[in-house]
Amino acid sequence: MTDARLAQLAADLPALRLLTDPSDLEHYGRDWTRRWTPAPLAIALPASVAEVQAVVRWANGHGVAIVPSGGRTGLSGGAVAAHGELVVSLERMNQLLAFDAVDRTLTVQAGMPLQAVQDAAKTHGLIYPVDFAARGSCSIGGNIATNAGGIRVIRYGNTREWIAGLTVVTGTGEVLELNRGLIKNSSGYDLRQLMIASEGTLGIVVEATLKLTDPPPPSQVMLLALPDMDALMRVFALFRARLALQAFEFFTDVALRHVLAHGAQRAIDGEHPYYVVTEFDAADERAQDAALAAFEEGVEQGWISDGVIAQSDAQATALWRLREGITEAVAPRRPYKNDVSVRISAVPDFLHAMQELLTREYPQFEVVWFGHIGDGNLHINVLTPPGMDDAAFIAQCEHVTKHLAVTLRQFGGSISAEHGIGLVKRAYLESTRSAAEIALMRGVRQVFDPNGILNPGKLFIPPPSPDGRH
Amino acid sequence: MTDARLAQLAADLPALRLLTDPSDLEHYGRDWTRRWTPAPLAIALPASVAEVQAVVRWANGHGVAIVPSGGRTGLSGGAVAAHGELVVSLERMNQLLAFDAVDRTLTVQAGMPLQAVQDAAKTHGLIYPVDFAARGSCSIGGNIATNAGGIRVIRYGNTREWIAGLTVVTGTGEVLELNRGLIKNSSGYDLRQLMIASEGTLGIVVEATLKLTDPPPPSQVMLLALPDMDALMRVFALFRARLALQAFEFFTDVALRHVLAHGAQRAIDGEHPYYVVTEFDAADERAQDAALAAFEEGVEQGWISDGVIAQSDAQATALWRLREGITEAVAPRRPYKNDVSVRISAVPDFLHAMQELLTREYPQFEVVWFGHIGDGNLHINVLTPPGMDDAAFIAQCEHVTKHLAVTLRQFGGSISAEHGIGLVKRAYLESTRSAAEIALMRGVRQVFDPNGILNPGKLFIPPPSPDGRH
Repeated sequence: MTDARLAQLAADLPALRLLTDPSDLEHYGRDWTRRWTPAPLAIALPASVAEVQAVVRWANGHGVAIVPSGGRTGLSGGAVAAHGELVVSLERMNQLLAFDAVDRTLTVQAGMPLQAVQDAAKTHGLIYPVDFAARGSCSIGGNIATNAGGIRVIRYGNTREWIAGLTVVTGTGEVLELNRGLIKNSSGYDLRQLMIASEGTLGIVVEATLKLTDPPPPSQVMLLALPDMDALMRVFALFRARLALQAFEFFTDVALRHVLAHGAQRAIDGEHPYYVVTEFDAADERAQDAALAAFEEGVEQGWISDGVIAQSDAQATALWRLREGITEAVAPRRPYKNDVSVRISAVPDFLHAMQELLTREYPQFEVVWFGHIGDGNLHINVLTPPGMDDAAFIAQCEHVTKHLAVTLRQFGGSISAEHGIGLVKRAYLESTRSAAEIALMRGVRQVFDPNGILNPGKLFIPPPSPDGRH
Repeated sequence: MTDARLAQLAADLPALRLLTDPSDLEHYGRDWTRRWTPAPLAIALPASVAEVQAVVRWANGHGVAIVPSGGRTGLSGGAVAAHGELVVSLERMNQLLAFDAVDRTLTVQAGMPLQAVQDAAKTHGLIYPVDFAARGSCSIGGNIATNAGGIRVIRYGNTREWIAGLTVVTGTGEVLELNRGLIKNSSGYDLRQLMIASEGTLGIVVEATLKLTDPPPPSQVMLLALPDMDALMRVFALFRARLALQAFEFFTDVALRHVLAHGAQRAIDGEHPYYVVTEFDAADERAQDAALAAFEEGVEQGWISDGVIAQSDAQATALWRLREGITEAVAPRRPYKNDVSVRISAVPDFLHAMQELLTREYPQFEVVWFGHIGDGNLHINVLTPPGMDDAAFIAQCEHVTKHLAVTLRQFGGSISAEHGIGLVKRAYLESTRSAAEIALMRGVRQVFDPNGILNPGKLFIPPPSPDGRH
């Protein structure tokens, strides 16, 4: 530890765990994106709010940038440290602090994994309903910093709706206790909501009070094969009108091919261009009959080609794996990812526009589509052709993303539905937010972090500094 | 219209409706608080977003303060114009702009009354679920500016949860289209959420896209008489565990006396200190049996003294009137109002602390309590003794509010659960928000309204200006 600033930090906070081994810098300096070479100054693993606060004050004093760090499962580079930043990992602050049966809340430290939060809720007969495939690795603090969505948004909304209180450390080292678990609180600006999805640029989330709810009734899982793209929204409308949906996820034949090659089990024979995994309340026979009736109507209308309903929990898990296994299955192909959304009503036209764009611009690439169609959220994964150079591939994809950004602006959509802007999408922020909005956002950032030490370069393109550095 | 600034406004915007008659100044210059003498410069009634924008630019150019104005049913003085401001009433901008069946949203102008929004949703077989007694008079823009709560929060949450998009005009006259109806959108700070509950100090809400939902199943309404304060939360816990609550509202014998004197009909005989009106799903016999079983268990436990279940819609309305008629019934006594909240789990201890405080400090005053106990929200109305001077009465009540603010801080509660801070509670903001939070809020206000023309003096205590004016 030869850096004088680090030596000072170690002297100021002798109990603070600090890592500087190259393997640690590599491990904590990157997230699930693989585009940047990790190069942090060091890794701090605070064990308390007071330590986080002291680290932030030190960073202000020494002009060191901080990258707040959770499970680093993000896909936008929001947790990447590639420019000599201090990574502040919340990984040691992973404890359950309180459960309240009357308030029906869990208060947890920000480093707690989502899966551990879900499990803690279950031990009290309740659920924390935000859910997605990275549940075992991601942290609740990271979920909050990106307003994580996932596969149950159609029923339960995003992370934003489940946060009753937040403790954050601002860019000046102030500790804020925001909303403190109140249901009704109309006393000034809701800074809690402002923190959610701010990607660590306004404050570091250190603790959260999470709302819980009753478990849903018993459910059934169905896999559907669809003959064409237009059938997707028709089946969605039909099922939404008839059933109490918990999830409605789509993927394509290309996605299926990858997930089957990765060990998942085929559930429907034949070739079909589109698939849907849907889960819905099925507490009693009436609900189960309604599901079958909806299915049959879809078949009669020609919107559904084939389908299977899970007969056991094991089969339900197997059907879900066809959808949830996609990200892992395509990971070896280092996909370039778009995560976009439009209003649900705009989905059919948007899908056609996208298909036209991708066919025109990516004829040589393999494209894997999947997503949360009932939320208007589409994930597009372009796979690196075997042997192709990463930099050249990304450059070509970025070119297409520029077109995509124009299309999104026409549709009033969003360049980031659920992963945040980070480094990956900052050049496209203006496709979703107006210049006036971005200027206001920069102004707000200045209020919470006047020295710009929190996650600089994320979310916004940094202004060129006088000496030409970024 | 002799004021040169107004003459300029009229010249700039010949089509803008401007009122300067004393009766109009009086009418539009006050809200449901009656503590301030209205003294606006004039009333502008824009008919379009462009007119609002032009008025804001004029106001910046001439240093005129603006008071955004909806239905003026607020109880915190947020819409009072008593210092030569221009009132910008959204009353002419009250049109339904769009309904989308796929998105299940209504897009409306901000001046649309809540009741009209609810009715529009119903014509499409859906509901806009935020609801409270002022529904016929308040506007959706005002609901958004205060994050209005009401009687269905226990099921549906506050206004905040129902806003899919907002169009606002900032303090510099920029028009922002925030979130545009997207379900998933993780691209930067959620300025939509920041606007909600900002009481017209960051921007003027001009249009909103509101989420709708399915109507609840058929419900039943029950009135319960309770023997003591501790029974309140016990019955709430019992009913919440057994039934799907849509509302759970309490009031006291003093409140009942006033509402009966005001024409409502007695539904339970005898004297009881506490009452609850509750509404819950009762789609089938099983749900109805569960309600009866919960009632019987409450009686056996000694938590419920008596009860009645509505046998018709007319009787349900009559039972609801016992709760909803309170505000109107006590209005002639010019009540001093507190609208406070704590976490639900803190309600029992807080109620005892409040009772002790009120008994000690208000022995001479009649106090009417009611509220949304399942949300931790308590309304305290202190009635002006007949013949007592308003100023002396308010001074005495303010003295008690200071004690109440200390108690609230101890309990981590809020000085304003659902009406906002406005003028009435600005001196007590720091009982709910830390000095650091208030400083950040002021900083945010500066970003959105650098010249401080939007609703100055509301929410924050203005700093004394160099010439001693406020």
